[in-house]
Amino acid sequence: MKPQPGHFYAVGVGPGAPDLITLRAARLIEGCDALIAPRSERSEQSLALGIVAAHLRNPEILEHVYPMVRDAERTRESWNEVADWAVARLEAGKAVVQITLGDPLIYSTSSYLLEALRAKVAPERLHVVPGISAMQATAAVFGEDLTLQEDRLTLLPATDLKAVEQALESSETVVLYKVADRLDAVIDLLESKGLLDQARLSFAVEQDRQQLVMDLREAKGTRLGYMSVVMVRTGRKAW
Amino acid sequence: MKPQPGHFYAVGVGPGAPDLITLRAARLIEGCDALIAPRSERSEQSLALGIVAAHLRNPEILEHVYPMVRDAERTRESWNEVADWAVARLEAGKAVVQITLGDPLIYSTSSYLLEALRAKVAPERLHVVPGISAMQATAAVFGEDLTLQEDRLTLLPATDLKAVEQALESSETVVLYKVADRLDAVIDLLESKGLLDQARLSFAVEQDRQQLVMDLREAKGTRLGYMSVVMVRTGRKAW
Repeated sequence: MKPQPGHFYAVGVGPGAPDLITLRAARLIEGCDALIAPRSERSEQSLALGIVAAHLRNPEILEHVYPMVRDAERTRESWNEVADWAVARLEAGKAVVQITLGDPLIYSTSSYLLEALRAKVAPERLHVVPGISAMQATAAVFGEDLTLQEDRLTLLPATDLKAVEQALESSETVVLYKVADRLDAVIDLLESKGLLDQARLSFAVEQDRQQLVMDLREAKGTRLGYMSVVMVRTGRKAW
Repeated sequence: MKPQPGHFYAVGVGPGAPDLITLRAARLIEGCDALIAPRSERSEQSLALGIVAAHLRNPEILEHVYPMVRDAERTRESWNEVADWAVARLEAGKAVVQITLGDPLIYSTSSYLLEALRAKVAPERLHVVPGISAMQATAAVFGEDLTLQEDRLTLLPATDLKAVEQALESSETVVLYKVADRLDAVIDLLESKGLLDQARLSFAVEQDRQQLVMDLREAKGTRLGYMSVVMVRTGRKAW
């Protein structure tokens, strides 16, 4: 896949390590005319932009500071502005790439931009390039299976503990995103279910500031950031 | 990550397109001394080996024909032989790579080889490199979110329809692997739940023989192969 004039690409750049991007992502970034890099309000620079620095060939760059709030209206407005920026360039025959951490379709801001673009751009001009997710990178650094044979895997945010409990009861592997300030409550839940020894925690996996926790008891009371992932193997559903 | 003497790497090469491998995978394959490529009994050649053809620098290659049967004993024996082959080379100071379709920790033969190697190789010499899964590639070709906001995603085989039904009731996105001869039963289940219009089907996604089905009614009665993926959006769990 090479960048085409007037086409848009939502490109996942993986969890953090520059060599965990795909060849497709690298070529699209190298060949694009304009590039959108999301940056959270809390960050001084775009993490995603740092990951792909070696592949930038001087595209026009929009660093979009997106709101990290649960406000559907504000989120939509913010992304509509980015969509307008992209559409102006697409209509001028430019190839536009949006880079995003992880995978563009797993808890990603790309979803918002794609939704806004669908109202304005023909579907055959919109493309998604998958990226390695933090879930996969976490399993890889711990060398723990996500699924084998008949196993069920559930990925969900740690925000709704009832949903987490339900997932633990019906899946052989549960992966929790957005753990952050829910960590202690998650640890208590896992302890009550006798699952603490089968749980692992990563923070900023595959980034320079990566932290790996094999025993979640040690993490109790700490405040790791937004990029924490908890992975639990509840058992195995054999053949 | 560069290949180190005496180290083993389970490397995911993605769903099929040669440009959907990571830079890390490419470098490890280019630099390894020995390479294990799994091949199913039903195939004439290793699909994984074809994906990475451009990165082979003449390593010693073992094409391992693995049994596609539900026989734990035969599976273990088969992989123990491969582990012995790998260990002989690791002990001679060679870097050994096993390539595998998709991700090495998602329904992958790498799990068996890693298990066999753990008994014989120091853990710091065993590495896993994640790869793009068919689930991610399927979502990408259809441009459908896997998860957004509070959504739960469940990935499971289509073999146990009770488990599929349970997943449909407790997840906003359900992805089914190993659909094959369960396709008609899955379609009937989705129809009974009023979910057919929210379901998509891919076969051999990102391979030359890729087939994409937007309306599963059209797929009824057909027999797509093992590499079929059904993706269902049951709803959205909003903020």
